[in-house]
Amino acid sequence: MFLVAFEGQHAPETVANFPHVVLPIAKAGQILKALKTAGVVDLVMAGGVRRPSLPELGLDWRGVQLFAKIGVKALGDDGLLGAIGKELEREGFRLVGPGDILKNGTTEAGLLGRHAPDAQADADIAHGIAVAKALGALDIGQAVIVQQGLVLGVEAIEGTDALILRAGPLRRDGPGGVLVKIAKPQQDRRIDLPTIGPATVEQAKAAGLRGIAIQAGNTLVLDRDALIRVADSAGLFVIAMDID
Amino acid sequence: MFLVAFEGQHAPETVANFPHVVLPIAKAGQILKALKTAGVVDLVMAGGVRRPSLPELGLDWRGVQLFAKIGVKALGDDGLLGAIGKELEREGFRLVGPGDILKNGTTEAGLLGRHAPDAQADADIAHGIAVAKALGALDIGQAVIVQQGLVLGVEAIEGTDALILRAGPLRRDGPGGVLVKIAKPQQDRRIDLPTIGPATVEQAKAAGLRGIAIQAGNTLVLDRDALIRVADSAGLFVIAMDID
Repeated sequence: MFLVAFEGQHAPETVANFPHVVLPIAKAGQILKALKTAGVVDLVMAGGVRRPSLPELGLDWRGVQLFAKIGVKALGDDGLLGAIGKELEREGFRLVGPGDILKNGTTEAGLLGRHAPDAQADADIAHGIAVAKALGALDIGQAVIVQQGLVLGVEAIEGTDALILRAGPLRRDGPGGVLVKIAKPQQDRRIDLPTIGPATVEQAKAAGLRGIAIQAGNTLVLDRDALIRVADSAGLFVIAMDID
Repeated sequence: MFLVAFEGQHAPETVANFPHVVLPIAKAGQILKALKTAGVVDLVMAGGVRRPSLPELGLDWRGVQLFAKIGVKALGDDGLLGAIGKELEREGFRLVGPGDILKNGTTEAGLLGRHAPDAQADADIAHGIAVAKALGALDIGQAVIVQQGLVLGVEAIEGTDALILRAGPLRRDGPGGVLVKIAKPQQDRRIDLPTIGPATVEQAKAAGLRGIAIQAGNTLVLDRDALIRVADSAGLFVIAMDID
């Protein structure tokens, strides 16, 4: 195993105990060279990447070529990640989804933990799925929060954490809302799988939500045992749904 | 003219010089009585209403009846406002849209002020309209911010001000984004018209946006002269578009 972490975008303790390099995301030439020197064949992309500003990029020559080719500014996140994935395949790497190599990484339909949605939550989940599908089709975002039929917030570029955070003060009395997070239809599952972890459950609890609905077989569940422990003790449900 | 202001939801100076009462929004019986006592025939609903929490409501008897009838919790904002409008008509009032009585209240297609969108802004406006229509069809919100093809944010229950505010730190380098604000298709134009004013332009400027696109004939433009002055001196365009 060999890790490439992106400068300013990683927590150093996550790579410290493994063979790794830390490089700016824009230095495509150096990244490719490091991967090839290490003899990498299969490539797994994992974790969130903050889209850097152009000056911050400080592109190297391969970076300039790549960005010129994919016209980064006109693309949504899917387009960007998909184009990067294609380039990496062209360089001879085999892209592998993190869900394919993590034991228990994705999840079958059903409950994670011991709490289950009630009828109101079921209705909010159904509405959230309809909204998330419409958003995904427009390449806007993956997540939506619904409380008692009311859409409290919709994720765009700010990400799921920011969405959950702002939903707290917007919540109404009565049964709390539900976070629904599903993949955009055109998303390349090997590159960018919707992800939740114990921290997501903690944030949801803090924002007054009652639970989280994800897409079965299509969501990366980080630290599943801890996530279930947190959800069980917080009284939140986490449910994986079969979604077409 | 007789004004009913909602307690805790109005700026006292806006009503001080006119015949008025200030009543809690939940006291439907008292509000109806005040309107009838004042001999009101035509009724104009204007301004934003923060949806109160249930304990805050302290419903009176008519309020309980009304809320029971319309099942407020299951409704989006349109449903709620539409139901209130229907009840007021049933009480014999004639609902008049603020756009129908304000001179220059709404606006024909074209530019307000001297700045115009360039090709990138035109493309962002077109994308924003497509997204806003999809959101509106789902009764989610009226507004979206697009920068260089990327959807920076989408309005749900938090309102346009909060959307603009959070778009500031999310902006990318290069040409700034565009705010697109259009009515939801099922919105009752007499009750809830999308609204912009000089403050909207100031917020947009502060968030690094380059302009605002609204729907011609279907947007309430508050203090039009001041809005144009602010936009001209800030270098922002404001454009009213014909939108089906």
